[in-house]
Amino acid sequence: MLREITGFSNPLVKRVKALRDKKARRLEGLFLAEGLRILTEALDAGRTPQMLWFSPESAHHKLVQALIQATEAAGGEVFVTSPDILSKLSGKDNPGAVLGVYEEQWTPLDALDRSAAQIWIVAERLRDPGNLGTILRTGDAVGAGGLILIDDCTDPFSVEAVRASMGALFTQSISKASWPDFLTWLRQGPGQLVGTSLNTEHDYQAPRYTPPVFLLVGNESQGLPESYERDCDLLVKMPMMGKADSLNAAVATSVMAYEVLNQLRAR
Amino acid sequence: MLREITGFSNPLVKRVKALRDKKARRLEGLFLAEGLRILTEALDAGRTPQMLWFSPESAHHKLVQALIQATEAAGGEVFVTSPDILSKLSGKDNPGAVLGVYEEQWTPLDALDRSAAQIWIVAERLRDPGNLGTILRTGDAVGAGGLILIDDCTDPFSVEAVRASMGALFTQSISKASWPDFLTWLRQGPGQLVGTSLNTEHDYQAPRYTPPVFLLVGNESQGLPESYERDCDLLVKMPMMGKADSLNAAVATSVMAYEVLNQLRAR
Repeated sequence: MLREITGFSNPLVKRVKALRDKKARRLEGLFLAEGLRILTEALDAGRTPQMLWFSPESAHHKLVQALIQATEAAGGEVFVTSPDILSKLSGKDNPGAVLGVYEEQWTPLDALDRSAAQIWIVAERLRDPGNLGTILRTGDAVGAGGLILIDDCTDPFSVEAVRASMGALFTQSISKASWPDFLTWLRQGPGQLVGTSLNTEHDYQAPRYTPPVFLLVGNESQGLPESYERDCDLLVKMPMMGKADSLNAAVATSVMAYEVLNQLRAR
Repeated sequence: MLREITGFSNPLVKRVKALRDKKARRLEGLFLAEGLRILTEALDAGRTPQMLWFSPESAHHKLVQALIQATEAAGGEVFVTSPDILSKLSGKDNPGAVLGVYEEQWTPLDALDRSAAQIWIVAERLRDPGNLGTILRTGDAVGAGGLILIDDCTDPFSVEAVRASMGALFTQSISKASWPDFLTWLRQGPGQLVGTSLNTEHDYQAPRYTPPVFLLVGNESQGLPESYERDCDLLVKMPMMGKADSLNAAVATSVMAYEVLNQLRAR
């Protein structure tokens, strides 16, 4: 069913716009994704929005048509609206052609099949949504199974994280757990827990990684708590040739993940 | 000379705050850096601010004292002010303890000593200041000589880029050039120009890189222009195991840079 929305004061406009705030997302269990590329990635991953918004200018684009059809077929609602209202919804002056409202999907740890992938990424108190989204994007690229969020991480369903993930939010599973719960689950099966840390001299290229490898990255400014580091099977560090002692968290995770992937594909 | 600034309407407050905009930076040749960590990195690299701002709360911190002394010794001005005014200057609710106003330093291509480092990073039409700063940070980490900006890149001296660089802005040289000028300069001496691209099947681990290696990264959404790719000595790509076809630009640059570093340190 296609509806036209013309008024800024329409309650639906307010409701969708509110999803830019975490409180509203948690309350509704819904989040926003923007742009043809990301929504098409979602569709390729079998995910359709509950609501699809687009402006008349983009209605005839083939990919928009595909999104409209898939959304309607899945029982979602389709709204055509003005570029101005799309801007208001997305908070951007220059919004993408489309905007989708999706159900948040959290995968409980017990539902994760650790044998489904050789690499898993675990992030602890990650604060920056751009870093979180970028890590999801790298996770997709290295064939990781998913991202497990430990303690109080930034929301993976924020607009910034979704944007930085470039659609990987729809292909990577997302779980959250306390550290003890994660550790209990991890130790019930195979899994090498590898932390990146400044508190080691162990070069990240020295070990032979054994899948499934769980790559653990800590908070951007504080790194991992010492007690979490002690729980790791391995602590490794990247060589640092300059003045700085650390890399950006998403970069460190990605350099590590490619090292593991390179080892695995060389075997 | 220490001065106390108490009024929001003080012309100096307005002048410093204006440096958050590119126009004012270009006009003055000055930029803002915030936070004790970054300013201390700058000092370690031999750079003192023209103006140092701090709040009374942080005046007795040892590192702030060191910054005050070095700034005064170098003829800079030191201002003590309220946390509210610091917030206004930095645009953050919770500003760092200190804020410095530094001279922009651009290194002309002809002044670059390419033999001083084995890795150089070249970025083309990079749009995201966070990516640019993160690339500088990785450049420092891999021992790169500097960053060369091609065509219309985001400003390396923006508050966001400076913050993401975590001080690497002060240790990496920064140059800018048009593509023809860069290429002319490059071909006057040794240098392997390596582009990351989706338009190749050449795995990034296959080549033996020959320093000095110039790693070329393109625009976030469009990649490199085809004609620039043809000018490269090598085009390579990272394996992509998932649905997405590309990595974040700073991640791709960092994964490449660590591959080159790993090859060089294994020799």
